[in-house]
Amino acid sequence: MRDVVIVGAGQTKFGEHWEKSLRDLAVEAGLRAIEDAGIYSKDIDAIYGGNMSAGSSTFQDNIGTLIADFTGLAINSIPAIRIENGSASGAAALHEGFIAVASGIYDTVLVGGVEKLTDVPMEDITEVISGEIDREWEAFNGSTLAASAAMIARRYMHDYGAKREHIAHIPVISHRHGSLNPYAHFKNTIKVEDVLNSTMVADPLTMLDCAPVSDGASALVLTTMENARKWKNDGIVRISASTVASDFISLHSREKITEFRSTIEASRKAYRMAKIEPKDVSFVELHDAYSIFGIIALEDLGFFKKGEAGKYLEEGYGNLDSKLPINPSGGLKAKGHPLGATGVGQVVEAVFQLRKQAEKRQVPDPRYGLTHSMGGAGGSSIIHILEVVR
Amino acid sequence: MRDVVIVGAGQTKFGEHWEKSLRDLAVEAGLRAIEDAGIYSKDIDAIYGGNMSAGSSTFQDNIGTLIADFTGLAINSIPAIRIENGSASGAAALHEGFIAVASGIYDTVLVGGVEKLTDVPMEDITEVISGEIDREWEAFNGSTLAASAAMIARRYMHDYGAKREHIAHIPVISHRHGSLNPYAHFKNTIKVEDVLNSTMVADPLTMLDCAPVSDGASALVLTTMENARKWKNDGIVRISASTVASDFISLHSREKITEFRSTIEASRKAYRMAKIEPKDVSFVELHDAYSIFGIIALEDLGFFKKGEAGKYLEEGYGNLDSKLPINPSGGLKAKGHPLGATGVGQVVEAVFQLRKQAEKRQVPDPRYGLTHSMGGAGGSSIIHILEVVR
Repeated sequence: MRDVVIVGAGQTKFGEHWEKSLRDLAVEAGLRAIEDAGIYSKDIDAIYGGNMSAGSSTFQDNIGTLIADFTGLAINSIPAIRIENGSASGAAALHEGFIAVASGIYDTVLVGGVEKLTDVPMEDITEVISGEIDREWEAFNGSTLAASAAMIARRYMHDYGAKREHIAHIPVISHRHGSLNPYAHFKNTIKVEDVLNSTMVADPLTMLDCAPVSDGASALVLTTMENARKWKNDGIVRISASTVASDFISLHSREKITEFRSTIEASRKAYRMAKIEPKDVSFVELHDAYSIFGIIALEDLGFFKKGEAGKYLEEGYGNLDSKLPINPSGGLKAKGHPLGATGVGQVVEAVFQLRKQAEKRQVPDPRYGLTHSMGGAGGSSIIHILEVVR
Repeated sequence: MRDVVIVGAGQTKFGEHWEKSLRDLAVEAGLRAIEDAGIYSKDIDAIYGGNMSAGSSTFQDNIGTLIADFTGLAINSIPAIRIENGSASGAAALHEGFIAVASGIYDTVLVGGVEKLTDVPMEDITEVISGEIDREWEAFNGSTLAASAAMIARRYMHDYGAKREHIAHIPVISHRHGSLNPYAHFKNTIKVEDVLNSTMVADPLTMLDCAPVSDGASALVLTTMENARKWKNDGIVRISASTVASDFISLHSREKITEFRSTIEASRKAYRMAKIEPKDVSFVELHDAYSIFGIIALEDLGFFKKGEAGKYLEEGYGNLDSKLPINPSGGLKAKGHPLGATGVGQVVEAVFQLRKQAEKRQVPDPRYGLTHSMGGAGGSSIIHILEVVR
């Protein structure tokens, strides 16, 4: 397998884009990534586009072809394929782009993620999002992704004696960093008390424990080390690991719901692939679609022992200048969560951080960035480890 | 890139499966392919699942994880990713599986395709299927995939003086061969007059020019040559080419609608990759979702000059014992068209043919099989060339 590097990164602001369509957002992010790479459209050999819900939300499928067309790349007849893995669709598209370049079949690929959720009527949005849990066994019987997260939180607090306040630290950190990110959906900072006193969504989780419904798109240009050296003098970011793992899709099939086997397995493989250990990670972008998912991920990723993540957050872990900066982008909670765009967006942030272009939210001297993306309530997890090689 | 071979193939019957769900169909095909390979579930390193419309038809996304779960493979935490490319979703999943094994990241992958269309209320089915044309510019304004095909047929007849009867030969051939295939949706033979006199769908195309709405699933096990030699004494089928090309998604953006640039480009690359010419092809599985698509594909694939395919069919080309057997499976028209399952199913048929297991519909002594799958009205095309290597 060849080394695969990222030479271009771009994204739209995440948020409510009432004036833009799915294709507008995809084009904006895609062209920014190509521009950032300093190359031409003709240099792109293939497109991988992550999107979860265009089918269920707007009856538009064949998204790969659509994006190839509207970015102007279809004129070169290049392959353009949509990748779907629930909320981890963008990260899965990156995995496929990574494999394609590593294999030798394509030299340079555009990996994009896009989601347009404000096109979905508000009364349907829960149905659309619950498309990533088991429709027949969970959603049909009235469960939702938020309800799954709430059950997991209750069980976690019961099993480990974790305090409700501990869990609330995740959105507090995400909002603190999001307030520094010009691409973020939300720019306000919040306190633990705000989380606890916010509107209840699914007990014990309140509105401020839950990531918002966002529109947005993000994109990366992947290529070989050989091409990268021709095109760039610096800011070349290597994908040192790209791993995917699955678990049973529904909670009732799992032995334990206070850890995600998919995250544990994907991260073990990732550390092996990148030849690093958790302690080597300079910052982590977590899939904090619900605060409890972030807490559990910190443990599954090997940063803290089971049940202890919250306590460390209380002590200041997570801040930009701490031992483990968490969600410098603002995470899913504050930067926003446009499903298919989220996983690619995490890596866009990692690229900005590793290149030291993250301005006010810059992590000091990062070496390895780790991104963690999840489909459903841990049905799948996808890990990427990134480092600057030049 | 490593050589990639197929060691297992399986599928459900295509048709109306009122008593089975999407997951039931996927499991049935997947386990058949694994059984046919003579291996165990633990030997599978990853799943690629092709599906177009589960989101738009049943609000179920995260299909990869769902299939991993219900085939029992999630117990090994393996990667499971859904691939979507309109009606070519299955062929695109095969392309991704091919790249994954070729790259060295996974040794053995299960590639599946599945679609459950009888879950869609009849009044919504055209909306779901039109998800692979441009929703905003075509479908929203009342166009459908059938209408696109009809416009293409009219223009083709006008530009090349082709007779209406010529186009009707495609479904006649597909039904003749489908009548011999136990997996086929339809088992009846039809005549050119039947096609002309059938209920009008979109002038000039009648019901018998159009593939049916089918349920079904199909699956393949891909692996390295090294593993294949350990597992099998014969019947090892090599993927000698796997190529994808795109075009503008909507007809109004194209210079010409009587040929599909995506098919021309994908097939050129495929012949180069397999180091063969059109004359070397022993049989072809065409994407005859509409009869005219089959006619145009025969020309785009380099078998006949522009405007001449129909005349050759009238002379007997297409039959099992002719110079160019077409759709020995029965094609999309008679074998059936469960969108995501179709592209994988074409390759399942090619495997059966190349292993000489196709019984009554066996093509005499085939060497190279070519499969052609299309997303939308030629927005994308995917070609596979297969040959027996042992």
